[in-house]
Amino acid sequence: MQNKKVDIAPSVMCADLCNLEAGVKEISDLGIELLHVDILDGHFSPSMPLGIDTIKQLKTRTNMKFDVHIMSKNNEYFIQEMIDLDVHQISFHIETSDHVDRHVQLIKQSGIKTAVALNPATPLTELEYILPLCDTVVLMLINPGFATNKNEKQVPYAVQKVKDLKKMIDEKGLQTQIEVDGRVSFDTIPELVHAGADILVAGSTSLFSSKQSLSENKKEMEEQIKKGLFEEVK
Amino acid sequence: MQNKKVDIAPSVMCADLCNLEAGVKEISDLGIELLHVDILDGHFSPSMPLGIDTIKQLKTRTNMKFDVHIMSKNNEYFIQEMIDLDVHQISFHIETSDHVDRHVQLIKQSGIKTAVALNPATPLTELEYILPLCDTVVLMLINPGFATNKNEKQVPYAVQKVKDLKKMIDEKGLQTQIEVDGRVSFDTIPELVHAGADILVAGSTSLFSSKQSLSENKKEMEEQIKKGLFEEVK
Amino acid sequence: MQNKKVDIAPSVMCADLCNLEAGVKEISDLGIELLHVDILDGHFSPSMPLGIDTIKQLKTRTNMKFDVHIMSKNNEYFIQEMIDLDVHQISFHIETSDHVDRHVQLIKQSGIKTAVALNPATPLTELEYILPLCDTVVLMLINPGFATNKNEKQVPYAVQKVKDLKKMIDEKGLQTQIEVDGRVSFDTIPELVHAGADILVAGSTSLFSSKQSLSENKKEMEEQIKKGLFEEVK
Amino acid sequence: MQNKKVDIAPSVMCADLCNLEAGVKEISDLGIELLHVDILDGHFSPSMPLGIDTIKQLKTRTNMKFDVHIMSKNNEYFIQEMIDLDVHQISFHIETSDHVDRHVQLIKQSGIKTAVALNPATPLTELEYILPLCDTVVLMLINPGFATNKNEKQVPYAVQKVKDLKKMIDEKGLQTQIEVDGRVSFDTIPELVHAGADILVAGSTSLFSSKQSLSENKKEMEEQIKKGLFEEVK
Amino acid sequence: MQNKKVDIAPSVMCADLCNLEAGVKEISDLGIELLHVDILDGHFSPSMPLGIDTIKQLKTRTNMKFDVHIMSKNNEYFIQEMIDLDVHQISFHIETSDHVDRHVQLIKQSGIKTAVALNPATPLTELEYILPLCDTVVLMLINPGFATNKNEKQVPYAVQKVKDLKKMIDEKGLQTQIEVDGRVSFDTIPELVHAGADILVAGSTSLFSSKQSLSENKKEMEEQIKKGLFEEVK
Amino acid sequence: MQNKKVDIAPSVMCADLCNLEAGVKEISDLGIELLHVDILDGHFSPSMPLGIDTIKQLKTRTNMKFDVHIMSKNNEYFIQEMIDLDVHQISFHIETSDHVDRHVQLIKQSGIKTAVALNPATPLTELEYILPLCDTVVLMLINPGFATNKNEKQVPYAVQKVKDLKKMIDEKGLQTQIEVDGRVSFDTIPELVHAGADILVAGSTSLFSSKQSLSENKKEMEEQIKKGLFEEVK
Repeated sequence: MQNKKVDIAPSVMCADLCNLEAGVKEISDLGIELLHVDILDGHFSPSMPLGIDTIKQLKTRTNMKFDVHIMSKNNEYFIQEMIDLDVHQISFHIETSDHVDRHVQLIKQSGIKTAVALNPATPLTELEYILPLCDTVVLMLINPGFATNKNEKQVPYAVQKVKDLKKMIDEKGLQTQIEVDGRVSFDTIPELVHAGADILVAGSTSLFSSKQSLSENKKEMEEQIKKGLFEEVK
Repeated sequence: MQNKKVDIAPSVMCADLCNLEAGVKEISDLGIELLHVDILDGHFSPSMPLGIDTIKQLKTRTNMKFDVHIMSKNNEYFIQEMIDLDVHQISFHIETSDHVDRHVQLIKQSGIKTAVALNPATPLTELEYILPLCDTVVLMLINPGFATNKNEKQVPYAVQKVKDLKKMIDEKGLQTQIEVDGRVSFDTIPELVHAGADILVAGSTSLFSSKQSLSENKKEMEEQIKKGLFEEVK
Repeated sequence: MQNKKVDIAPSVMCADLCNLEAGVKEISDLGIELLHVDILDGHFSPSMPLGIDTIKQLKTRTNMKFDVHIMSKNNEYFIQEMIDLDVHQISFHIETSDHVDRHVQLIKQSGIKTAVALNPATPLTELEYILPLCDTVVLMLINPGFATNKNEKQVPYAVQKVKDLKKMIDEKGLQTQIEVDGRVSFDTIPELVHAGADILVAGSTSLFSSKQSLSENKKEMEEQIKKGLFEEVK
Repeated sequence: MQNKKVDIAPSVMCADLCNLEAGVKEISDLGIELLHVDILDGHFSPSMPLGIDTIKQLKTRTNMKFDVHIMSKNNEYFIQEMIDLDVHQISFHIETSDHVDRHVQLIKQSGIKTAVALNPATPLTELEYILPLCDTVVLMLINPGFATNKNEKQVPYAVQKVKDLKKMIDEKGLQTQIEVDGRVSFDTIPELVHAGADILVAGSTSLFSSKQSLSENKKEMEEQIKKGLFEEVK
Repeated sequence: MQNKKVDIAPSVMCADLCNLEAGVKEISDLGIELLHVDILDGHFSPSMPLGIDTIKQLKTRTNMKFDVHIMSKNNEYFIQEMIDLDVHQISFHIETSDHVDRHVQLIKQSGIKTAVALNPATPLTELEYILPLCDTVVLMLINPGFATNKNEKQVPYAVQKVKDLKKMIDEKGLQTQIEVDGRVSFDTIPELVHAGADILVAGSTSLFSSKQSLSENKKEMEEQIKKGLFEEVK
Repeated sequence: MQNKKVDIAPSVMCADLCNLEAGVKEISDLGIELLHVDILDGHFSPSMPLGIDTIKQLKTRTNMKFDVHIMSKNNEYFIQEMIDLDVHQISFHIETSDHVDRHVQLIKQSGIKTAVALNPATPLTELEYILPLCDTVVLMLINPGFATNKNEKQVPYAVQKVKDLKKMIDEKGLQTQIEVDGRVSFDTIPELVHAGADILVAGSTSLFSSKQSLSENKKEMEEQIKKGLFEEVK
């Protein structure tokens, strides 16, 4: 049984990209505070969903907190742009950075919440020295930017990796949050939360599921979160 | 005196990126048919205004014709994406392509209008063999993607380059259109049109000028175009 | 004492590249089923022994099972080519992939045996999450593609690394096979097999040793394998 | 009417790659001396037909003269390899070399025939200073390495480009040879030869056409060459 | 209490780069033997302090032992240059090498002292197999080459990382030396030495501190080293 | 007969790199004002003679005017560094810049003399639009950065290229200066000057020739310049 808050971070990629202001207002009106903003540069993987100027303009139209996830081969440039935009949290991928500590410190010194993101197969040993400096670790549960295959499922080791990270955080006596990203669904929420997830990136398999309204989906997410926190997970 | 039509191609980057559907409808309602869509990948130059998914969704909301301008180091990928989207015209930069003919033919064989784009300093000799295959040549009159310096002006050789290209096209007996992109303003329209420009990419110094309404700006653009076509240009 | 089968995978690079069909038939006639096929792209390291078209044609001339080992900076391209060719097993290098899980899954979903390859110095911690998805792990015992120095020896930690991997596999209760590649010789086979190797890539220091016939070399390899399996290794 | 010899250079890619020795002997037995050897590195374009080791071994099995055509992003490496192999002629692509003069001189100083290759769209102005140093210019008439589309035709400006180059060579009083590569067919040979081509790379649309024997194809090529040299070309 | 020698390796970057011979003689006259020579290529990070030709000439003017630290994306090239120069020790960064074992062996086989360098955030697990081959491990305590921010401090986990490495070395029964690089100052020397550092790269916060003479600074460094070796460190 | 001044720009690479201050003072004492400073990044070509920090420090020790020649694949970074250093002239290579106009304007707007550099084989057509913006064009007469071959000679088309550029400048009514770089020797000075060269980069075959003193060499250079200006050149 855990006494903690689990946040929902809807992915802006699932909103109506042509009517972003209205789409984001709809999310915000649900009482959700975090907005997960993906930046893909087309070089990290073959995908580039929305641009920086879009993000900049959106920042002036909403009070939601931007949880920016950079997936790029040019971390230096995009981190600086997001610092200038004064977002809520910035994560970047360890796999494409030769200067991980520098990039962490760039974000940290700006006063913005600092996060690193790991692709599914990347081991947690990469976090050995950097973990205490991070507010959050983003665990990708699918391969980012290759979403053409809509049947792609979470990697089979998703829950185990969350548990391993939770254990690592606890053993070091840290408060680092765990953010999970990729096919987080009503079905998988309980065990992800039970394993230690603090922030759930919500997409087409949860908040934006087409079977119910946004509001109904949100309610169902909250129920599944409660199951993960308070009930037994098989 | 010239008897021809000069098109206005408003840059989507100047619309409200958070309410694209409405913003584009407002342009479309003015009776404008072409929409200039910039794709910058953050590697060609430090800029990435809007994403491919945004463009894809927008394509389903409007009947405007997409005049896509790819500024990338990965032409192969972005050209294919735009072919799949069945846009109206695709241009890519000669400076970043080792396989110019192939890229031209990829577009051409798809039945989409085919264009190459040249940075300001790139000589017209690069067009020697490819010109007859192109429906349009896009001449950049500023350096694309480095717009941080808002005082950046058109390159001083802008009008001369348009004239040189017009002469080259006429001498080869072609109908290739000349598209000009970069700080096209009320002041410069007459001489650009007089020199041979057929398509004017319209941005913050013309159609989106904040001093008047969109509708008034459009009217003023049309008057300046007429000056270029029918009156003497000093 | 172990009750298992150890496979010999002759490297196609050691065959007569100008008479491949005959060369491979000679190997096949020995009753060997696996053929180790190296793909080096000249960018991973300065070597490009044989081409894809050669491999494609060879595929139609023999029934041997192709054990393809990709050493490239462009895994995406070569993996897809080999999937299309429907080979027996594909391995790629973790060091040059930012999307290890994706590349593993690309292979896995095609129904082909899935393997990752590790350069000598790469730690086994890289396998933390991906190991259960792999049918095979290929351990390079020399640096691939720098074979100009014919005196290059196996790295001194070769046997220890095989043992460590074997222990890791056993502790996770997996059946993953260990393939060893690089100067596998009559002398080193017993301790490599004893340490846990399941597949031996055979080259100029074993099957293709010029001192005996192919057939005699094969017999000697089998004897050394038996030593590793059943006898005491110092 | 011209009094000159036109050479046929069969592409080794069209031979049986698994029985190269025999395949090349068959060509050699026809009395053909030149063998066109393509080196593609998989990075210049998505193709890597045969490897360097294959080429090296083949060199020891035949007396044919190797006309090597490097299509790579790493010219330095491949040029050096081919110099070491002491081939007959080496060409490399101007589009991927920042040091064109150096690469020309590397080849020249080795005593090997020196050539540069131009992609279809590349203008002849690129040859301004380097032409007098070249024994041969290779004009690509299709886009090299993207042969997946078997219906790809010669670029429409193929003959014109040969004429332009011939004029450029004559005006400078040079003896540079023109080599044409890409879908050279029985139909197009007369006008290519008439325009000035000296060496014809022969592939599946001429020497290796499946409708006749190699010997019959060779005879037909020679007849078409005569037409180009001595008869009127429409 | 430890009975060992701790070396001072002054960074040549802190000497007068325009009067290197004199500057290095001044250091040498103090009785210091090691000279830490940084090679940054402007691509690893935005910095390129001094060139190879400078280093080559300097080598002929002094008897100091060159401790070369390569920070490059082209390890192959720079390692070979330094081997040819026959320096005392060469280190390169694991983060930019796909062929770590090869690069280690290149150095080792030349008879030169062999070292690998780790950026601050890089975990020690990367050393799993390569450690026994290294004479020295260089731990960067700041991010190399981003020294524009003069207030940059050592990473907070600096001392812990030295301790962890020392433990790893002891457990494997090795004699590998630990070299620390980045803001090594009078204040931090005792705890770094106490943790296990064997070589201290000395820069503007120690040997070249502007508050005292070189000679006085050296004396103070030696005192702080003694504290680390013999006294209690809080 | 011409009435103009021809400048000598000694290459700093030929000075004693370990005693730069003295070496440059010796040059300066001869009454020479320009100092040619080469920046090679090891990626443009395999050479990196001296570093930026060296250049920065040297700038504070001498009043010579720095004529900086950037040979890099990262023009943006090095141009900015040299602007910050407020040097006399900056040139960069057109072959490695996708944004030639931008880079020209970056330099121009800083008030520093603006130059572009062309490798030997690069045609003058590349200058079509940019020439009026340049104070100087640097023509490389050898391949920069491959000086290992000390017998390398000027390209045979060196003088012709200078003449062609001179004609181009005159036809456009410009005052652009021509700077020649690469094996400028006593023998070749007259015809280079006669052809139109305004600035001579001086190295080991002229000012730094070991056969005479610096002072004698300077006198001989001046005499050869006079021959080029006033006498008949065969």
